[in-house]
Amino acid sequence: MIDRAVAGRAQPESTLLGPGDDAAVVRAPDGSVVVSTDMLVEGRHFRLDWSTPEQVGRKAVAQNGADIVAMGAWPTSFLVAIGCPPSTPVSVTDALTDGIWAEVAGFGAGVIGGDMVQAEQLVVSITVLGDLGGHAPVLRSGARPDDQVAVAGRLGWSAAGLSALLAESDRFPELVAAHKVPVPPYESGPVAARAGATAMTDVSDGLIADLGHMCSASGVAMDLDSALLEPGPELSAAAAALGADALDWVLTGGEDHALAAAFPADAALPAGWRRIGSVLAGDGVQVDGRAWAGGGGWQSFD
Amino acid sequence: MIDRAVAGRAQPESTLLGPGDDAAVVRAPDGSVVVSTDMLVEGRHFRLDWSTPEQVGRKAVAQNGADIVAMGAWPTSFLVAIGCPPSTPVSVTDALTDGIWAEVAGFGAGVIGGDMVQAEQLVVSITVLGDLGGHAPVLRSGARPDDQVAVAGRLGWSAAGLSALLAESDRFPELVAAHKVPVPPYESGPVAARAGATAMTDVSDGLIADLGHMCSASGVAMDLDSALLEPGPELSAAAAALGADALDWVLTGGEDHALAAAFPADAALPAGWRRIGSVLAGDGVQVDGRAWAGGGGWQSFD
Repeated sequence: MIDRAVAGRAQPESTLLGPGDDAAVVRAPDGSVVVSTDMLVEGRHFRLDWSTPEQVGRKAVAQNGADIVAMGAWPTSFLVAIGCPPSTPVSVTDALTDGIWAEVAGFGAGVIGGDMVQAEQLVVSITVLGDLGGHAPVLRSGARPDDQVAVAGRLGWSAAGLSALLAESDRFPELVAAHKVPVPPYESGPVAARAGATAMTDVSDGLIADLGHMCSASGVAMDLDSALLEPGPELSAAAAALGADALDWVLTGGEDHALAAAFPADAALPAGWRRIGSVLAGDGVQVDGRAWAGGGGWQSFD
Repeated sequence: MIDRAVAGRAQPESTLLGPGDDAAVVRAPDGSVVVSTDMLVEGRHFRLDWSTPEQVGRKAVAQNGADIVAMGAWPTSFLVAIGCPPSTPVSVTDALTDGIWAEVAGFGAGVIGGDMVQAEQLVVSITVLGDLGGHAPVLRSGARPDDQVAVAGRLGWSAAGLSALLAESDRFPELVAAHKVPVPPYESGPVAARAGATAMTDVSDGLIADLGHMCSASGVAMDLDSALLEPGPELSAAAAALGADALDWVLTGGEDHALAAAFPADAALPAGWRRIGSVLAGDGVQVDGRAWAGGGGWQSFD
């Protein structure tokens, strides 16, 4: 199965030695490497009655890639460990690895190694390596009072899609698609780093939750302006139909892997970024000067 | 749980940014990084009624570290993704991470990132990064006819220990310990690389199986000399008591993570290495000029 997963795949120039030996060797031109890992478990992070194996593969890579661009770096290499029941059809593992490779290829990166073992349920563990291109990483800890708070990418779409799935509604295919395969604004990460972002993170747990992590790490507070977070027509229509609060999806929905960052007060925000609030002295994230009374951050669906 | 796993742990000098942000940053002084990943699953790669969680953690790190030293490199950083049932006691995950850190610290390396998620069974997925120190990696594909075949470290101990466990014998604690926590000859990897090893691998599937991979990659054959593979008194005693063939353990037992390498015919083998045979033209691995009639390589115990 490992052979099937790597056969005939093109490796990028950064791969000095690809799969097939005891380990792979990857170029790290600036003398450092950015690295992150995530594990996805069937029934908790994805459901095969909702998502195709290809979508699961894409999502697993996307959430790992988002961690790298949130540092201002770019993914170069992925390692993929898959545990699956012995009854798993080869068509499923083939589709899973196809999805992984499709999203990896979108970065111009390669799958350079992996492992495939028997397990009781499908488990996908991905590690991503990235290249800072000689620049300093953008941490969560650099936000300062008076900075602008800004985001790039969709907020609340994945949560809205999950609500539609749970309600067995077929009216919102775009939102459901966003839940199955997030579309992070990858390029906006390095762009923000070059534009002087003082802090950055990806939105995996929900905007308030992840900005809360940034506030804690930076020793600051943030006030978000709900008028700048206006849900678009897609979310508003779904919220009305499903009896939900669209702004709550925006503020607390996870898994979109949007990017959130702080920029100096006088910085011109780069393309793709929009201002949503300000950094203040203090601690915690408020909306329009008050604690948000809605959900407290997103959890997996089980 | 992630906080518990990283709190108060010292990071090596190679860790530029440790856990707690979207990704970690690791030094890659020679402009490249060696990387490998392995997944261990409860019930397949370990049993918690046999091994303590600390032993499981040590073993998971050891088998990953062995992949790096088998390239002639040295491990610098580990990423650890753990899936476990929600009922798992904190004492178990604490002991698991203690074992992981203990083996990691033996390398002078650090755990720089991870993930902890709910799963139906305990799954440990580890990724290791290593440093070649400016040297070329030693691949499986470099063995040439007339080279010496040599090994460093124990062979067959893990298989013998597994046999003792399956037989519920308490007479061979050293062999059982070797099954629970392998003791790879880590230093012998870089030492072999500096001494001119033409090919190297770690013995995870069994000596004949892993040398077979080396033969395939190198386009050569090997002949091993059984007189040079004489099982020691520990294996011989266990084989006699358990009705097994000690030489079969040596030739086909997996999971010891010994190192096997080819060296030029005229090379003086470095300390820790012993000659066991020769590289020939052709393909496949023979013992005393014949195919080995015993087991065909090691499989997990289920």
